[in-house]
Amino acid sequence: MAKEGRKNTYDRIVDASLELFNQEGERVISTNHIASHLSISPGNLYYHFRNKDEIILQLFKRYRHELLHYLDKIDVLPTPKSMVDFIAGIFDIMWRYRFFFADVNTLLERSSELSGEHHEFTREEVTPRLLKQFHNAVQKGFLDMDSLDMSGILSNMWLIGKFWYVHDRALHPHWDGEESKIRGVYQLMGLMRPFVTAPFREEFDQELLKYAGAQTYVPAQ
Amino acid sequence: MAKEGRKNTYDRIVDASLELFNQEGERVISTNHIASHLSISPGNLYYHFRNKDEIILQLFKRYRHELLHYLDKIDVLPTPKSMVDFIAGIFDIMWRYRFFFADVNTLLERSSELSGEHHEFTREEVTPRLLKQFHNAVQKGFLDMDSLDMSGILSNMWLIGKFWYVHDRALHPHWDGEESKIRGVYQLMGLMRPFVTAPFREEFDQELLKYAGAQTYVPAQ
Repeated sequence: MAKEGRKNTYDRIVDASLELFNQEGERVISTNHIASHLSISPGNLYYHFRNKDEIILQLFKRYRHELLHYLDKIDVLPTPKSMVDFIAGIFDIMWRYRFFFADVNTLLERSSELSGEHHEFTREEVTPRLLKQFHNAVQKGFLDMDSLDMSGILSNMWLIGKFWYVHDRALHPHWDGEESKIRGVYQLMGLMRPFVTAPFREEFDQELLKYAGAQTYVPAQ
Repeated sequence: MAKEGRKNTYDRIVDASLELFNQEGERVISTNHIASHLSISPGNLYYHFRNKDEIILQLFKRYRHELLHYLDKIDVLPTPKSMVDFIAGIFDIMWRYRFFFADVNTLLERSSELSGEHHEFTREEVTPRLLKQFHNAVQKGFLDMDSLDMSGILSNMWLIGKFWYVHDRALHPHWDGEESKIRGVYQLMGLMRPFVTAPFREEFDQELLKYAGAQTYVPAQ
């Protein structure tokens, strides 16, 4: 609490915004809501941020920092369990910033600065780190894929990751974030499955099927 | 022209709405715009449709009909060329109803009827038809995949198809629908690539690379 007490107004605004955006949706929360939630005056908030988009940009920078930190620190072992944990960790971070993915395209369309940051981030920072993990897994004999496969899977992982929560929420009337995350991990593991080499296939499928429980969507056979 | 002249008002409203939605975006077109475009009174339009969502529902039904007709009539040969043409044909139909995919989630959220129709359609009607094509390709020795692969690829194809235009537009400042379609076909073919059996792999890659021209996004290596 002592630490909380010393937190400056700037950080308190960013923290409260994240909490309110995640709970209520970014669209319905105004800077006035945020100020009122913190019992500060709107003027005080405007002293730190010209508008809501500036707060969102700060939140994006935090998300960016957390994700890169995660991608840099982790050393994915060429084992199915390690691969699954790796992907689950990415979804965990996305979940902490879920408001961002709840309506990602409207947000990106509104702010060219945010949109530019997001794309540059994915292309220049996330992609090379994921490629490094893939190359590592190929070298260790866990995955069998060439550069065309890698380029394809990276684009598809990007799209699926970006729209996962939106898509999944639309399919489940009683949506639950934790289950959604599990389904998302399952979905991305499915993308990787064909590249898993024979010696690891059985263990991979066992890991994959642990995530199948929350998979309420089963295509009609 | 004679046929055009005889077209009833109901159909003319649906046609004009599709044209205007595709051109201007569904959000900015009101029923008044549509009536004015057809030089009919708003009252005449309301005689046929209570609101814009009813027109959109009709357009969805047309899209549904066209896509099912396409999926039923086509007999995908177990050759790379046939597979690529098949997927390109799906994107062609989506392109004719592109307003629907330009902001698909906002549209689906607004109308529970439309949302229900869309999900039922994908799950009950599109999925079994695609599964049939996959099973056929497996039987003919063109694809090597099991039921877990099929379920994974179908969910991913659904998500990628649904959000393709939104995602691709966000990445390309000077967006072009025709190029976007080519990139979309490339993306979906990439999903299938790992399942193509060795005898067909070279020919498949040749077909795939024809679509790589419009692929301006290349992940940093």
